[in-house]
Amino acid sequence: MKKISLLGATGSIGTQTLDVIRANQDSMKLVAMSIGQNIGLGEQMIREFKPKLVSVLSKDARDELFPVLPPETKVVFGEEGLIEVATHPDANLLLNSVVGSVGLKPTLAAIECSKTIAIANKETLVTAGHIVMKAAAEKGVSILPVDSEHSAIFQCLNGEKKSEIAKIILTASGGSFRDKMRDELKNVTVAEALDHPNWSMGAKLTVDSATMMNKGLEVIEAHWLFQLPYSQIDVILHRESVIHSMVEFKDTSVIAQLGTPDMKIPIQYALTYPDRLELPRTKRLNLSEIGSLHFAEIDYERYRCLKMAFQAGKIGGTMPAVLNAANEEAVAAFLSNHISFLEIETLVEKAMERHVTINDPPLEAILDADNETRNAVKKLIQ
Amino acid sequence: MKKISLLGATGSIGTQTLDVIRANQDSMKLVAMSIGQNIGLGEQMIREFKPKLVSVLSKDARDELFPVLPPETKVVFGEEGLIEVATHPDANLLLNSVVGSVGLKPTLAAIECSKTIAIANKETLVTAGHIVMKAAAEKGVSILPVDSEHSAIFQCLNGEKKSEIAKIILTASGGSFRDKMRDELKNVTVAEALDHPNWSMGAKLTVDSATMMNKGLEVIEAHWLFQLPYSQIDVILHRESVIHSMVEFKDTSVIAQLGTPDMKIPIQYALTYPDRLELPRTKRLNLSEIGSLHFAEIDYERYRCLKMAFQAGKIGGTMPAVLNAANEEAVAAFLSNHISFLEIETLVEKAMERHVTINDPPLEAILDADNETRNAVKKLIQ
Repeated sequence: MKKISLLGATGSIGTQTLDVIRANQDSMKLVAMSIGQNIGLGEQMIREFKPKLVSVLSKDARDELFPVLPPETKVVFGEEGLIEVATHPDANLLLNSVVGSVGLKPTLAAIECSKTIAIANKETLVTAGHIVMKAAAEKGVSILPVDSEHSAIFQCLNGEKKSEIAKIILTASGGSFRDKMRDELKNVTVAEALDHPNWSMGAKLTVDSATMMNKGLEVIEAHWLFQLPYSQIDVILHRESVIHSMVEFKDTSVIAQLGTPDMKIPIQYALTYPDRLELPRTKRLNLSEIGSLHFAEIDYERYRCLKMAFQAGKIGGTMPAVLNAANEEAVAAFLSNHISFLEIETLVEKAMERHVTINDPPLEAILDADNETRNAVKKLIQ
Repeated sequence: MKKISLLGATGSIGTQTLDVIRANQDSMKLVAMSIGQNIGLGEQMIREFKPKLVSVLSKDARDELFPVLPPETKVVFGEEGLIEVATHPDANLLLNSVVGSVGLKPTLAAIECSKTIAIANKETLVTAGHIVMKAAAEKGVSILPVDSEHSAIFQCLNGEKKSEIAKIILTASGGSFRDKMRDELKNVTVAEALDHPNWSMGAKLTVDSATMMNKGLEVIEAHWLFQLPYSQIDVILHRESVIHSMVEFKDTSVIAQLGTPDMKIPIQYALTYPDRLELPRTKRLNLSEIGSLHFAEIDYERYRCLKMAFQAGKIGGTMPAVLNAANEEAVAAFLSNHISFLEIETLVEKAMERHVTINDPPLEAILDADNETRNAVKKLIQ
């Protein structure tokens, strides 16, 4: 029985994780979860899944929710609450799907308690990959990817040897604006940015997909997850998002994972690994119906956020945390109509320029770089 | 050190196998081989690779070749010669790449001697899959595919569980006449049939690719190799032959193997499995350069040989041997301009109609069905 702690239950990955748990009640159980701003949805989830422990955003949220819940549900809040959920003694697996660097400390706490980690929170590996992977290795804890691209690579590596990898190839849909020239990006709106052609995701991720910062963060994440140098990580433009990613081996053979654009596939795989269970309600991939798959090289001048992510990854140390924090602030400002779309990359670039990298940083230095970058970006926006 | 017996050294797969051995002399050695009609090429190969034992087609060929060879080379001939090569005591692996049902007995003899089998001879599994797989299971012998499609599936199944397969999907290029309507096939020539768009193969295989009998034989072979019912085997039209085949799992995830159209990739994989070695002189797959991959459903009325192969496979017993024998005779007659292209399928159909299937046939019954079918088809052609 997989006993699951779920961080970010009311988000896009969280709700789909609960769909998977609902469909596999004989082999999975939710024991603890955190919810976000949508308290109404959170309350429904609590009533259905009856977790022993729930964490909410704030004390106010707790006070609002507590009286209406069954008395056996413990409700906690804030960063401490996330850690309490992540380390719940009954759980053997943490699925971390909160968005942002708030996901970092709970992951490390769960590793410390020897929980298997299913990671959908990019920032955990992007900002502190060296700490997380080292801690996981020391504790013998598996870090399982939930992101469709990393799950694809993870699946392609089944039964293969790391030493025989030539490179991994992440596919990128190109996002909402892939058919626009760079000049046409100046005046795009938030609504246009949120209209992703293939995947239904949260707002932050959809904008990151349009800038391809999403892919950049995935590149850094892949570097840590699969312990490969950046020279062995490629990105290819693939409009249809049918091939979720690929691995090329030394003998030139390429193994790819394909599927419908349904996050329940990688979510379930992370929860059932190394087994695969039926996913009956998911449409099966029909390549004849799709007809054709397209591929093109990435133009790194068109997608400068991806270029900067490779740069930040290669620089290492605190730089990926700066890239990520600057991007989070910039995207938030874009989503609230304070800056234009192209200013996202300008702000990230400025944040990277002003930062003096600290190598092999401890957790506090990463969080400092994160805070300092956010303040600097906020000032630039004002 | 892989010590290799090679049947069919002067054929298309054979010469490429020797290329692989030449490039990996520190881990592979040729100990015995059989050669075909091209004695000149065979002689060169003998001088380069210095096998201890060589089998030729006939006593005359032996008498021609023997005086010009180094005295330490033993030369044998005929069916007995093939078996002697297949069971050479120094060999630990047999790569069987002869074309036709002549490959059957040497494979069984090699299994009996506990050699690992790398199988490029379709007929071995098509006509006697039930005997070969049973013998291999009893002896604990691995049957490794060399064919690119089966190697693809074999690679996709690395680290996966057979019970979790939903279906395997063989890709078919459609062959030389894929852009012709059925009506246009009446007057096609041998030269047109031999002009395959993607792969460079022997004449028989290239015609089989144009009729899609090739794919039909692969379906039956896959049934035995992967021990799956025909209901779990699909074929899809894929012009570019970049995806060599795929496996769909129960969770709807699809794993595919891709590569350049170079038979050295699956040949080397069979010789190095479970390891992968560098294949430095092979062009790497570049999907951006290829640009797009196309897929379409198979029209089983257009490709009636494929339909008949599925039927023969499902009937089982001696019927696949009849399908194969009739096809061999019909293709030979087409290649020597005795029949038209569309008569190939008509002859196979007639041979299947007249045959009374023997279930679970012993080897002799299979060879009888083979002989009887060949005679019947020859009579129909006269």
